[in-house]
Amino acid sequence: MHKIKVNLKERGYDILIQKGLLSGCPDLKSAVSGRKCLVITDSNVGKIYGPGVLSMLKKAGADASMTVFKAGESSKNIDTYAKLLRECCRAGLDRSSVIIALGGGVPGDLAGFVAASYMRGISFIQIPTTLLAMVDSSVGGKTGIDLPEGKNLVGAFWQPSLVLIDPGTLRTLPKREIRCGLAEVVKYGVIMDEKFFSFLEKNLNRINNLDQKTFETIIARCCELKAKVVCADERETTGLRAILNYGHTFGHAVETVTEYGKYAHGEAVSIGMCMAANLAIECNKFSPGNKFSHELANRQKALLQAIGLPTSLGKGINPVKIYKAMFKDKKAQQGKLRIVLPVRIGKVSIVKDAAPEDVKRAIELVNGRVS
Amino acid sequence: MHKIKVNLKERGYDILIQKGLLSGCPDLKSAVSGRKCLVITDSNVGKIYGPGVLSMLKKAGADASMTVFKAGESSKNIDTYAKLLRECCRAGLDRSSVIIALGGGVPGDLAGFVAASYMRGISFIQIPTTLLAMVDSSVGGKTGIDLPEGKNLVGAFWQPSLVLIDPGTLRTLPKREIRCGLAEVVKYGVIMDEKFFSFLEKNLNRINNLDQKTFETIIARCCELKAKVVCADERETTGLRAILNYGHTFGHAVETVTEYGKYAHGEAVSIGMCMAANLAIECNKFSPGNKFSHELANRQKALLQAIGLPTSLGKGINPVKIYKAMFKDKKAQQGKLRIVLPVRIGKVSIVKDAAPEDVKRAIELVNGRVS
Repeated sequence: MHKIKVNLKERGYDILIQKGLLSGCPDLKSAVSGRKCLVITDSNVGKIYGPGVLSMLKKAGADASMTVFKAGESSKNIDTYAKLLRECCRAGLDRSSVIIALGGGVPGDLAGFVAASYMRGISFIQIPTTLLAMVDSSVGGKTGIDLPEGKNLVGAFWQPSLVLIDPGTLRTLPKREIRCGLAEVVKYGVIMDEKFFSFLEKNLNRINNLDQKTFETIIARCCELKAKVVCADERETTGLRAILNYGHTFGHAVETVTEYGKYAHGEAVSIGMCMAANLAIECNKFSPGNKFSHELANRQKALLQAIGLPTSLGKGINPVKIYKAMFKDKKAQQGKLRIVLPVRIGKVSIVKDAAPEDVKRAIELVNGRVS
Repeated sequence: MHKIKVNLKERGYDILIQKGLLSGCPDLKSAVSGRKCLVITDSNVGKIYGPGVLSMLKKAGADASMTVFKAGESSKNIDTYAKLLRECCRAGLDRSSVIIALGGGVPGDLAGFVAASYMRGISFIQIPTTLLAMVDSSVGGKTGIDLPEGKNLVGAFWQPSLVLIDPGTLRTLPKREIRCGLAEVVKYGVIMDEKFFSFLEKNLNRINNLDQKTFETIIARCCELKAKVVCADERETTGLRAILNYGHTFGHAVETVTEYGKYAHGEAVSIGMCMAANLAIECNKFSPGNKFSHELANRQKALLQAIGLPTSLGKGINPVKIYKAMFKDKKAQQGKLRIVLPVRIGKVSIVKDAAPEDVKRAIELVNGRVS
């Protein structure tokens, strides 16, 4: 079993990664025994893993029940949030109770925010069942819901007390969702670990064949890397955590302009990373310290493509619209963009003063329309 | 000017207390200059103090606007919360913006929770305009909203960046609300400061005549005492902060049974403190360490009555119902009550194993029906 410690002092916790973990986890007993537990999950995941998780909790000595909401990002709103809070009351949860977030990013974010705010905050355990949630959203304590005005505009930083990852659940995941998770996996390589990036390049066959051992290694390394960043900047205040947004400022804008219909999040991030690489090259022209080259941009692009991720924009998408949408990002402060750019594979820096024409050009360049 | 420092390290802040502070406060500039500010207030307070606060903010260099919700506890719900979050979007607030909570406990709790959760938490400034909010709810970082199932069931611990208190605003407050605030003031004396309790006894005339200097002193001392407790137990985890609940476990039950109609919060707390004093005497019979006597209970009762607060239950209120309602309190854990009892004036202890018959008797005794 891989065990990763997230060292956040009194808010510290373990991430446990092992195939078959959901059939029984000895570490669960101390976290839930004698307590009321409410499993919050969506209609897809609840059907497949709900009964097993409930029986595992009961075996660990918990007084466990489950509540299910309709699967999909459209459920991640204030109405579902209010409904789940009332379910907590109905289940009789008190301050010593535990919420279990079971599923992908949507149940994780929603249930996490419920846990962060019910009675001003109770414990919660993350059991991510998608690759994206395993390597990204379940680690780091970001919870939240969407408003009609934008995604994740409401929420809290609230750390789980335990994260249980069973890579066996990836077998039931659609291939497209695996690919989306892999976009974030590649991201970790580019932003902080060239060796890991090379590992991905060398293990493409195993990755594309969903080899369990390889995925255990990948998930564990991504969690380690994310934990390192989160510990250095828990609440996104020092700027360090911002490196995790590599590809995301562009990616969110791509999602906004295409109205969250054409691209899944990971696909938009994949395109966003290519845009960021282009911008790094554009900026490079004027700053000799930045060594990012066409060669490195192509290496990133090749890996993303080998995984099956998009690296250019579909036809009919207006680059200027994407540029404008970038300013609506939650991380834009006082009208200024902060963009994460690669310096080399394994290292990024944050640029606050990219020229608008360079940014627009970087967006256009993903389609190879400009030289 | 009284300036009280709340020493919560990176979450530390100042409480400034001075008559006339809302006409202009030099300390405001560094907190708001160049930032977007949204004043959140209710329809009563907005009318009286809204324009003044807005112009003060603008003078301090802020880009300030205001949003107003219908006055009353019934507004402290998820619908108003959702509406206010969308107002934040409309006002274009980003992570560097500031929310201003202007008014009593309801605007403070609501706006505080909006600030705690909008973009996963932005700065906020408390400007309490009721005595209760000045001495209690605006200090300590408790924010929240009600559910149909109970009060304050949802929220966050979120510290303000500054608290501005102008005792001049008490002039526009109904007398009953002043009395309610004074119930909490008396509470501070009983739980931690006998000297302050004596000060109140000696200054009854000045208190009942709303003497501004006396109120400045009272508010400053209460804030100091509360800050001390909050710093020792910010998130109500070590049990220390629980002493602030003196009179509240009984009081909340009185409010629940009378359906929040008959008694205002402070009035219910006043009755609750008398019940707690009775229970201290009941328990005293069996534990020689507890010195609380009829004499001390009467001293507390006399002060509450001199202020004009109720110290007994109205007719037709069933003590057993009150007893049962106590178990619905948010602080009840795994079906067990934790009740704060006076040891002497100026000191309390927490009792976890009070016998049900003693608790029931303590409730009945407020009406003098049992000897």
